[in-house]
Amino acid sequence: MHDTIEGQDRLIYSRNDPAIRRLRELQSREGRDRTGMFLIDGVRPLAEAVALGVRIEQLIVAPQLLSGQVACKLVKKLRLAGTPCWRLLPEVYHSLSQAEEPQGVAAVVRQRWERLDQVQPSRGLCWIAAESVRSPGNLGTILRTSESVGGAGIILIGDTADPYDPATVRASMGALFHQRVVRTDVSSFAAWKARRQCLLVGTSPTASADYKDIHYPNSLILLLGGERKGVSPELQSMCDVMVKIPMVGRSDSLNLATAAAILLYEVFNQRRSRPGCISKASGFSISGDIP
Amino acid sequence: MHDTIEGQDRLIYSRNDPAIRRLRELQSREGRDRTGMFLIDGVRPLAEAVALGVRIEQLIVAPQLLSGQVACKLVKKLRLAGTPCWRLLPEVYHSLSQAEEPQGVAAVVRQRWERLDQVQPSRGLCWIAAESVRSPGNLGTILRTSESVGGAGIILIGDTADPYDPATVRASMGALFHQRVVRTDVSSFAAWKARRQCLLVGTSPTASADYKDIHYPNSLILLLGGERKGVSPELQSMCDVMVKIPMVGRSDSLNLATAAAILLYEVFNQRRSRPGCISKASGFSISGDIP
Repeated sequence: MHDTIEGQDRLIYSRNDPAIRRLRELQSREGRDRTGMFLIDGVRPLAEAVALGVRIEQLIVAPQLLSGQVACKLVKKLRLAGTPCWRLLPEVYHSLSQAEEPQGVAAVVRQRWERLDQVQPSRGLCWIAAESVRSPGNLGTILRTSESVGGAGIILIGDTADPYDPATVRASMGALFHQRVVRTDVSSFAAWKARRQCLLVGTSPTASADYKDIHYPNSLILLLGGERKGVSPELQSMCDVMVKIPMVGRSDSLNLATAAAILLYEVFNQRRSRPGCISKASGFSISGDIP
Repeated sequence: MHDTIEGQDRLIYSRNDPAIRRLRELQSREGRDRTGMFLIDGVRPLAEAVALGVRIEQLIVAPQLLSGQVACKLVKKLRLAGTPCWRLLPEVYHSLSQAEEPQGVAAVVRQRWERLDQVQPSRGLCWIAAESVRSPGNLGTILRTSESVGGAGIILIGDTADPYDPATVRASMGALFHQRVVRTDVSSFAAWKARRQCLLVGTSPTASADYKDIHYPNSLILLLGGERKGVSPELQSMCDVMVKIPMVGRSDSLNLATAAAILLYEVFNQRRSRPGCISKASGFSISGDIP
């Protein structure tokens, strides 16, 4: 590893170094919102980002924590490409990382947001729209599942968890770099929906329609409510149909990422059973809209 | 609220009180394993436990944090039933609770484990067996989904997260008190499986069978591998069938609780579409094995 660390790297020995303090600001929503940046922490998510051509603004390496060929090759590749690099002591790296076992490589990357007016409802398997999602982990898991079924991305309505929260980045397992992310408010979403040909499907435990009994069209948005209160009345009134996921026992609700997965796989299963779907060794690929 | 706090309560003013130190030990696996106890923290899970007749060994109340009629009635009911009660200052309660917004009521309860030889594979919708599950949150979410479909419980094989971890209790949303929990090792599980009539279905991204193409019988165990390595070769060799959940895009895996939910809902949907299932306003109830 050490042969890849060159003389022009900035060495940082203190967790109180102003550069480190600025990086730590990216742990808070306020810091991320103000700078438009976020931190990718760990070998796998960074490799995913690099493979997709995401521009790395700043590479951060703790050589003593780095291990494995993949990590070393990744750092070498980025440094050869001229990415500015800071070299940190392990204890300084620990002050930046929320990982249980920090892997010694992180990067600062610019957040990527798609505008609502760029959203094509027929893109991919479908879109997710989510209102008032509070848990960054749930949000990351939803992105991961959406990626697994060829979903296009997520439209965040109102006050939700930040997709660039470290816990979301971690839970998405790289899906955040593939999925499109949009943020909007209820009235903008209403205006957008009114101009688009698509089926907006909301979820509620009190809906009369079973989620299995719906035919999901290509131009589709699945709307999820927050963990606590579900889909708000205002958004329910915009939905073309409300569905429930049946439950037995004493349960009155499902985890939000669980509910999203059950719906996404129902849409996916309907779509892949139609003509035009191609079976592959690793699973199924859907011809058509998938980018 | 204050009228329910009687003179015989023990008052605890210090987080260094030996009683509080013993309670804090229940935050660690070692402390829970040694005592056989665990902590229920919060109004909703405690109310679930009480409704099921779970014996409360010790009630812990921070009157200044308590709010709402449900919480106050719950405390009153338990105190009238003679449950020993400790009264804590808010800052002492905070030292016990991992909740973001502690609700000021907790209880010590004895762990409940079912023996493997008591497990009836045909009970409920099915059983989950899980190997090497590391995340307490995933484990709790799996229990919550199993409860939602009328699953019987979970068989934990080998070294897994603790179902009585505070994060599991929280994520299960009360399902932990309804679901049966068994712990065993690979060889005991193998011996048990050899004597039972049931279909053991394992999951792997490289399996050739699609999870949708299997007919799931009443006597069924769904085997999940760990988050990192999937189902071990040793357990794979015991499976009657291995299935995959198809994926597209760049994904190579699903979150474990997501995978469990997709499988559980497939089994649930197959079962409720068979004759003998009864539709109810709140969802579906399956006649037959559900306790």
